[in-house]
Amino acid sequence: MSGSVYGKIFTVSTFGESHGGGAGVVVDGVTPGLELDAADIQQELDRRRPGQSSVSTPRSETDTVQILSGVFEGKTTGTPVMMLVMNRDQRSGDYGNIKDMFRPGHADYTFYKKYGIRDYRGGGRASGRETLARVSAGAIAKKILLKYGIVITAYTAKVGSITGKSVDFSFIERNPVRAADPEAAPRMEQLILEASAAGDSVGGVIECRVNGMPPGIGEPVFNKLDAELARAILSIGGVKGIEFGAGFAAAEMRGSQHNDPMTPDGFTSNNAGGILGGISNGNEIIFRAAVKPTSSISGRQNTVTLNNEAAVCEVHGRHDPCLCPRMVPVVEAMTAIALTDLLKQNAALHA
Amino acid sequence: MSGSVYGKIFTVSTFGESHGGGAGVVVDGVTPGLELDAADIQQELDRRRPGQSSVSTPRSETDTVQILSGVFEGKTTGTPVMMLVMNRDQRSGDYGNIKDMFRPGHADYTFYKKYGIRDYRGGGRASGRETLARVSAGAIAKKILLKYGIVITAYTAKVGSITGKSVDFSFIERNPVRAADPEAAPRMEQLILEASAAGDSVGGVIECRVNGMPPGIGEPVFNKLDAELARAILSIGGVKGIEFGAGFAAAEMRGSQHNDPMTPDGFTSNNAGGILGGISNGNEIIFRAAVKPTSSISGRQNTVTLNNEAAVCEVHGRHDPCLCPRMVPVVEAMTAIALTDLLKQNAALHA
Amino acid sequence: MSGSVYGKIFTVSTFGESHGGGAGVVVDGVTPGLELDAADIQQELDRRRPGQSSVSTPRSETDTVQILSGVFEGKTTGTPVMMLVMNRDQRSGDYGNIKDMFRPGHADYTFYKKYGIRDYRGGGRASGRETLARVSAGAIAKKILLKYGIVITAYTAKVGSITGKSVDFSFIERNPVRAADPEAAPRMEQLILEASAAGDSVGGVIECRVNGMPPGIGEPVFNKLDAELARAILSIGGVKGIEFGAGFAAAEMRGSQHNDPMTPDGFTSNNAGGILGGISNGNEIIFRAAVKPTSSISGRQNTVTLNNEAAVCEVHGRHDPCLCPRMVPVVEAMTAIALTDLLKQNAALHA
Amino acid sequence: MSGSVYGKIFTVSTFGESHGGGAGVVVDGVTPGLELDAADIQQELDRRRPGQSSVSTPRSETDTVQILSGVFEGKTTGTPVMMLVMNRDQRSGDYGNIKDMFRPGHADYTFYKKYGIRDYRGGGRASGRETLARVSAGAIAKKILLKYGIVITAYTAKVGSITGKSVDFSFIERNPVRAADPEAAPRMEQLILEASAAGDSVGGVIECRVNGMPPGIGEPVFNKLDAELARAILSIGGVKGIEFGAGFAAAEMRGSQHNDPMTPDGFTSNNAGGILGGISNGNEIIFRAAVKPTSSISGRQNTVTLNNEAAVCEVHGRHDPCLCPRMVPVVEAMTAIALTDLLKQNAALHA
Repeated sequence: MSGSVYGKIFTVSTFGESHGGGAGVVVDGVTPGLELDAADIQQELDRRRPGQSSVSTPRSETDTVQILSGVFEGKTTGTPVMMLVMNRDQRSGDYGNIKDMFRPGHADYTFYKKYGIRDYRGGGRASGRETLARVSAGAIAKKILLKYGIVITAYTAKVGSITGKSVDFSFIERNPVRAADPEAAPRMEQLILEASAAGDSVGGVIECRVNGMPPGIGEPVFNKLDAELARAILSIGGVKGIEFGAGFAAAEMRGSQHNDPMTPDGFTSNNAGGILGGISNGNEIIFRAAVKPTSSISGRQNTVTLNNEAAVCEVHGRHDPCLCPRMVPVVEAMTAIALTDLLKQNAALHA
Repeated sequence: MSGSVYGKIFTVSTFGESHGGGAGVVVDGVTPGLELDAADIQQELDRRRPGQSSVSTPRSETDTVQILSGVFEGKTTGTPVMMLVMNRDQRSGDYGNIKDMFRPGHADYTFYKKYGIRDYRGGGRASGRETLARVSAGAIAKKILLKYGIVITAYTAKVGSITGKSVDFSFIERNPVRAADPEAAPRMEQLILEASAAGDSVGGVIECRVNGMPPGIGEPVFNKLDAELARAILSIGGVKGIEFGAGFAAAEMRGSQHNDPMTPDGFTSNNAGGILGGISNGNEIIFRAAVKPTSSISGRQNTVTLNNEAAVCEVHGRHDPCLCPRMVPVVEAMTAIALTDLLKQNAALHA
Repeated sequence: MSGSVYGKIFTVSTFGESHGGGAGVVVDGVTPGLELDAADIQQELDRRRPGQSSVSTPRSETDTVQILSGVFEGKTTGTPVMMLVMNRDQRSGDYGNIKDMFRPGHADYTFYKKYGIRDYRGGGRASGRETLARVSAGAIAKKILLKYGIVITAYTAKVGSITGKSVDFSFIERNPVRAADPEAAPRMEQLILEASAAGDSVGGVIECRVNGMPPGIGEPVFNKLDAELARAILSIGGVKGIEFGAGFAAAEMRGSQHNDPMTPDGFTSNNAGGILGGISNGNEIIFRAAVKPTSSISGRQNTVTLNNEAAVCEVHGRHDPCLCPRMVPVVEAMTAIALTDLLKQNAALHA
Repeated sequence: MSGSVYGKIFTVSTFGESHGGGAGVVVDGVTPGLELDAADIQQELDRRRPGQSSVSTPRSETDTVQILSGVFEGKTTGTPVMMLVMNRDQRSGDYGNIKDMFRPGHADYTFYKKYGIRDYRGGGRASGRETLARVSAGAIAKKILLKYGIVITAYTAKVGSITGKSVDFSFIERNPVRAADPEAAPRMEQLILEASAAGDSVGGVIECRVNGMPPGIGEPVFNKLDAELARAILSIGGVKGIEFGAGFAAAEMRGSQHNDPMTPDGFTSNNAGGILGGISNGNEIIFRAAVKPTSSISGRQNTVTLNNEAAVCEVHGRHDPCLCPRMVPVVEAMTAIALTDLLKQNAALHA
């Protein structure tokens, strides 16, 4: 299957550009008999929509989702669920000035080199708008996982050099940064606003935890749990790295420190991040994703035109000064999609 | 396709346990007409075999590879290439004491929970021995990439807290650590030997660079170049993280710093690691993999038995005190496999 | 990937039920730079829409297609092309009487057994309406194939016991049966109308020919050209068999008769149907599909209820008395999709 | 995945040429905990091996299979099972005379056009020898299916114009033709021997029945049960058609005849061949495959050389005069593989 399709069993086919007719997703392999209506999807979409807070773009998009198939009398039928968001607030004029040059840090150049043609309006297919398809599909995946008691929670763990120290799940949706640390959150927000005021942007780290994960999920040797999560998360625009459990810190550890001892009551530490040999071990799954600073900044940048002549680029329009807050639900969604697909693969193996 | 099969077009099917009859791989989708003989494969295998240096396990395995199909009169025919290494030096007795308990840090517990049955001899399928199949397939992939002028070079960039500062490709195969920094290499070696002497192990970081990469490779939105590399590399046992270009350091950067400016002569920096929007940009691809300390250590560790009773585990046998040196060719192999598959996917898109 | 997704490279994801919100398809892996607009798709859709002739259902559905993504300024961009037909003429009342029983010959029973839930309105996902997605995707595939000079032509070769003897491609779209034999066509039409008047239906055979096919397409040993075409065609509702070239008649032939001799000017016969060893040989590809009589008939039939009690079923509503005329474009579409995917796979193999 | 890999979950990767080092298969996705030893595989292989009867080639190949991985202490571990048959009786000299020309009816020409290189020894990858991999994998699939009470039985239903009228499963393995009709079998045998004596070959039909099939298996709309079986069976060399239930005879039927009525005791006929809407209906699955006459015949045939010059071909060597008897176990194997994969897909859907 081609690049916009994910999953062996729980198969997610996304489509849509920033300024095309609409964006959405077909999800096949959905467990039949699941209660589902548009509000389940809308609730997750509202977490990623623009214009929701002090630190996100002021573009106001309603992003209303419709379910066009696969649901009958409020339940999934096991046939493909199609979810569609028609595009409305498009303001193509905002982007006209970048038609003939490549914005630094964006996919403009690589799309042009790959496809030989480029929908320059709002980033086209490389726009963050594409993630609404992921979040829609993820909303279904989350419902499937919930049947198994599996719950996914992501949050902004770091903005610039400010790192969250504590984790309070209940706080995440109550602050615009989606931080889990009530103490760090206002400082993170402040840093984002400062970067924005300077016409700049700032990077961060998103941490994700999966609770209720049964042991045994993951398909060695190539579709290991961590490998699949890495692919799912790195496929999100702006993510530049991932680490599980102790992650890069493991490089400086000794085996005697890193190995998580086992006792009859379970593991006594979690350096492995809940995964051993690519299979869940029943511990909490924990990973972190490195998020680059938003590429769209209003300052002047050196670039080239389509004809490879030097040019100066100024990106106007309305952009998030930090990707993390609105990416949190996207990370959860991709995690949910990957886990659902692997859960179903495990069921198939044992049939 | 199931978990031991990788690739849409360049399809790699691996098999083999530590102590079974043999291990190997079937590679399908190999470009026909490629010159190939067993020596091409053997050369790469010799880089990963045990017993090759001061810092690797003293197990001496010859690991002689045979090509059983897909090559005729010295050239690939476009049909599946099967490469087989029969197992010889097995010493099952070494592992008998871990039959009834789970070694901390190993996949013993998760394999048991997943499959309900476990080949406990030498780690079974979760043994590092599995990587010889990856290296064999990677040797073919490297030959295909070379036709396009693409060359992959990995090296040990960090051991414990010792980080390489310079990169000299020609030095890599001339030191037992496979470091690229002649100054740091002896200190890395020393650290590994110290850990080994203490019955312990040490982690590290492997860095990988791809030169000659044309722009346009990678399949958004899910099979992006970085996403596929992340999956390929995280599927290697012992890898706990990956980062591209500036990676996790991007979290602390501003957009104005991180965006790589473009000039008519190319990019003037490479924070992106050669990838924009999931597609190669023609710059050098650069990524780093976090490698945990070897799980097999000779010290006493707390664990549980199959019946979940507390136990003390002492892993004897012969193990590498640091995974990096012998993992370097594995990282190259998985990179080569992922790139070859994406290169072929790109050709298919344009057909 | 799940059951409603077809293709490794040219990936077609369909969705939609008879009476849901809409039906359509996401096509990924589309060659970039291809001229495409909705009229290209509509033209093919109009060939399969109901109410078009004396021998098709009088339901009048406009089936207007929209392209929502993947096309920019009249050209494909290489990103997923989403095509949508919103449902309009639904008349759910017509189908209410079959809510609690299984219609003989239909998928009512098997969908209920498989999914445990069934959208009984108009056959739900098993409705022929699903084929508009295939035809839409096929319209793109045909455009890609045309670049290579490959042209696909299907026609009704048999209705009941009336078999076409001659083949005139130019006649096909000029008769309601879509027969290629001007002499047989009116008799076929007459037979269909008689069956319809009797509250019954009649079966037939569709023949398909591919001209301009280059040699070398097909991927042994499992994705052979004939194997893929067989899957593609048998996946169409109502098709019960397929044969290539001499087909079932080959059973009664000797090798000396069946083998197609080769001369410097090409093959002198075509018993192979243009395929040898699962790979196109440059000859015309020719196959026939057996089409069962329409399951929906107005006569009384014995069946059972959801509770497995005996019942009598009378299917009212408006149905085609013979599936062939409207299935002709569906056969062409599936052939085009399968060939495009294999053409792209072959390009990938050689990269 | 490439052309020599079959299956989404139960994944079969085959390799091997007629005269290479060996042939075999890696099977991934095998249910763990299944009792399996080499004798289980050998038993099926012995049914397809040459030299077993009056109507098969006198080549005597022992075809001894080894299991090299995936089995521990007599049980499958859930990791890939690798099965290998080393080549022994090769007699390359027999085939030297066809090095520079294309044998009519064979894949010589198409392999050459596709790959640009051809292993001409004994047909290379296109040799019937490739089917030993299918039979080996099928032996595992059969064991999995047996857990569900599913049993597959194929037999020669027709040779030339002689059609079996009765079906006695117990007779199949007791006659060299593998016919199910004791009355027709000796006449079929006689016909084969006559064709052979005349330096010619003869075609036939293989019928296959699946008993104990639960309803609900098959994945609409593309991986329908009949579509997957069609692909699996048409991928066998020499098969030119397939039909399910009434098959091509359905073309001449009315809906009132073809629809299988349902009663509280089940279906009262089986024109559907056990499949409705691409999903098993609980009835016996029944299909027939058209088998062409063996392409290798000893008579003189017109052909061309590699340089497209006219030539006369005489194929010596030792070949089966009718493919059916030895293809019976191959049809069963491919049926088993397809069903197992779909059974596992269905389990995954419902997870």
